[in-house]
This record gives sequence, C-alpha cells and structure tokens, in this order.
Amino acid sequence: MENSTAQTKELIQPLVLTPEALLDHWQGHRKLTRRVIEAFPENELFQYSVGGMRPFSELALEMVNMAGPGIRGIATNKWEKFEESDRPAPKTKEEILGLWDETTEQINVYWPQIPPHRFQEVMTAFGQWEGSGHWILFYFIDNEIHHRGQGYVYLRSLGIEPPPFWDRQ
Amino acid sequence: MENSTAQTKELIQPLVLTPEALLDHWQGHRKLTRRVIEAFPENELFQYSVGGMRPFSELALEMVNMAGPGIRGIATNKWEKFEESDRPAPKTKEEILGLWDETTEQINVYWPQIPPHRFQEVMTAFGQWEGSGHWILFYFIDNEIHHRGQGYVYLRSLGIEPPPFWDRQ
Repeated sequence: MENSTAQTKELIQPLVLTPEALLDHWQGHRKLTRRVIEAFPENELFQYSVGGMRPFSELALEMVNMAGPGIRGIATNKWEKFEESDRPAPKTKEEILGLWDETTEQINVYWPQIPPHRFQEVMTAFGQWEGSGHWILFYFIDNEIHHRGQGYVYLRSLGIEPPPFWDRQ
Repeated sequence: MENSTAQTKELIQPLVLTPEALLDHWQGHRKLTRRVIEAFPENELFQYSVGGMRPFSELALEMVNMAGPGIRGIATNKWEKFEESDRPAPKTKEEILGLWDETTEQINVYWPQIPPHRFQEVMTAFGQWEGSGHWILFYFIDNEIHHRGQGYVYLRSLGIEPPPFWDRQ
C-alpha cells in the first residue's frame, strides 16, 4: 500500500509550470533585457563598466551565445562547445539587438520541438555542464537575470534610469 | 476528435518541474545569496552602494520581507501588506543572517502545505500583485537574483571576489 502510494507520487505531480509558461517566462525576461541593452548609450554599451567587470555588450553577447545554441541543444540534445562561434564580435548596438532578435526567433522555433521527457532528462550542456533539462534552462534564464542586474548598476551609475524590473511585456 | 485532443492537451502536460525541484531551485539561490551577505564587510553591508542605489542590507531585507510572508501567502492564500513588519530594522550582519535562516525554515515548513492547484491559481500577492502561484514564486526568486547581481557589482567595486554564481550548495 505504502509502496503504491510512493509510486503514484512519483508518477503524478502537481502542475507547477507548463512548457508554454516557461517559454513566456524566458521571453518575458528577454524583452526586459533587450530594453536594458537599448538603454545604454552606444559607447558605454561597449566600454563602460564598474569594478573591473565586463561591459554590458559582452554580457549581452554571453546571453546570446548561451540561449541560441542552448535552445538547439535542449531541443535536439546535440551540443556545440560554448562560445565557439565563427561570427565576428558585433561592434554596434544595432548589431547586438539584431543578434538578440535572431535568438528570440530561434527560441520560438525550437521550443515546440522539445520532447516532453527532455525537461527531466539529465544531459551535459555544451559538453560541459551536467543537469536536467529544466535545470539547464533555468541556468540560462538566471544567468541573464544576474548579469542584467549588473547592467542596472552600470546604468544607474551613468545617471540613466533603467526600465522597470517588473515589466516583461 | 480534435476537441478531445485539445482537451487532453490541456489536462496532460509534460512535467517541467516538480514542486520539490522548485523548492530546491529557490533554496539553492538563497544559499548563494546568504554567501553574498556574508561576503560584505559589516559597515559596507549597511552603507556602501553604487549609483545611488540601496545598500545590500536593504536589498537583503526586501528579500526576507518578500519570501517569508510570501511563502505563507502562497501556502494559505492569506496575504499581509508588503513590508508591514513590526520588527525593528536589523543593525548587524548577524541579525540579517538570523532573519535569513528563519526565512529558510519558514519556506521549508510552508512549502509542503501548498495545495497542488495553487501553482496555477491566480491570486493577488500582498493584496497588490496579481498573478498565478508560479508567476508569484518566480517573481520572488527572480527579484532575489536581480538584486544579488547588483550586490556582485558592489563587492567587485570594493575589491572583494563574490562567491561563484553557479554554486548553489
């Protein structure tokens, strides 16, 4: 009796989050990060930083390099090495926003191709980081929130009001 | 036929995240934030900031005020007003860490009491912010990641190496 209850508990779980809700969650955060990129003046985006940290252009590029190949990896479980891109580093805000928007599309295209079991499957992202699908996806999202928080400080210390954190539209 | 497929799709969803995995996710982030609080020297925790933003003690206290009453709200759907606390503001790092650890306990106690439907139920957190249970929980978590990212910049600009972002143990 106890055994069968335990087994049922493993098989039937309360619905915390649908795949669609997780996609909305991620793309909502990405909309906000896009506005943070836009809020930087052109030069400061590439040159300004606080405490010897990377400028926001490099943080945004890290997000792009993680999200695009990352969603392909989650959908297909084929992983490239991290940041092995042939693409030359973007030199303007417009180029970064262009890459951002391409990534938005890639996520929307690959998302419905994620097999249902993939969220629980343990894999090695970029041949380097082992975790379940949901763990890896949240790593991408949380890394973006973390670095974007850094960007808020850069903006404030430049005297620029950052976009509101709660607005994900 | 189409109708019944649509209905089944609404009722049966891939398992993205169990409640236990979401609890681990949150508490993992909270362990890291605790280390960030610890990394600040006593005075700088209460006084240092960049760009006119709040010192990290105030950010940590916002997290405590959100998480403790927040998890009680999620579990019971009874909400107090946000930050209406009778407790005097803590004046030392030790007091903040004490509040942090109390909150850790509260989350662990209330979490198993969350009714299964609560993650999808729309409610008004703190009588103020409307969203589903999962949306509100992720708001708590993401707000913490966001402000902690700010704390990383404060630490770096103080010449202090922050704890590694990926370590949630």
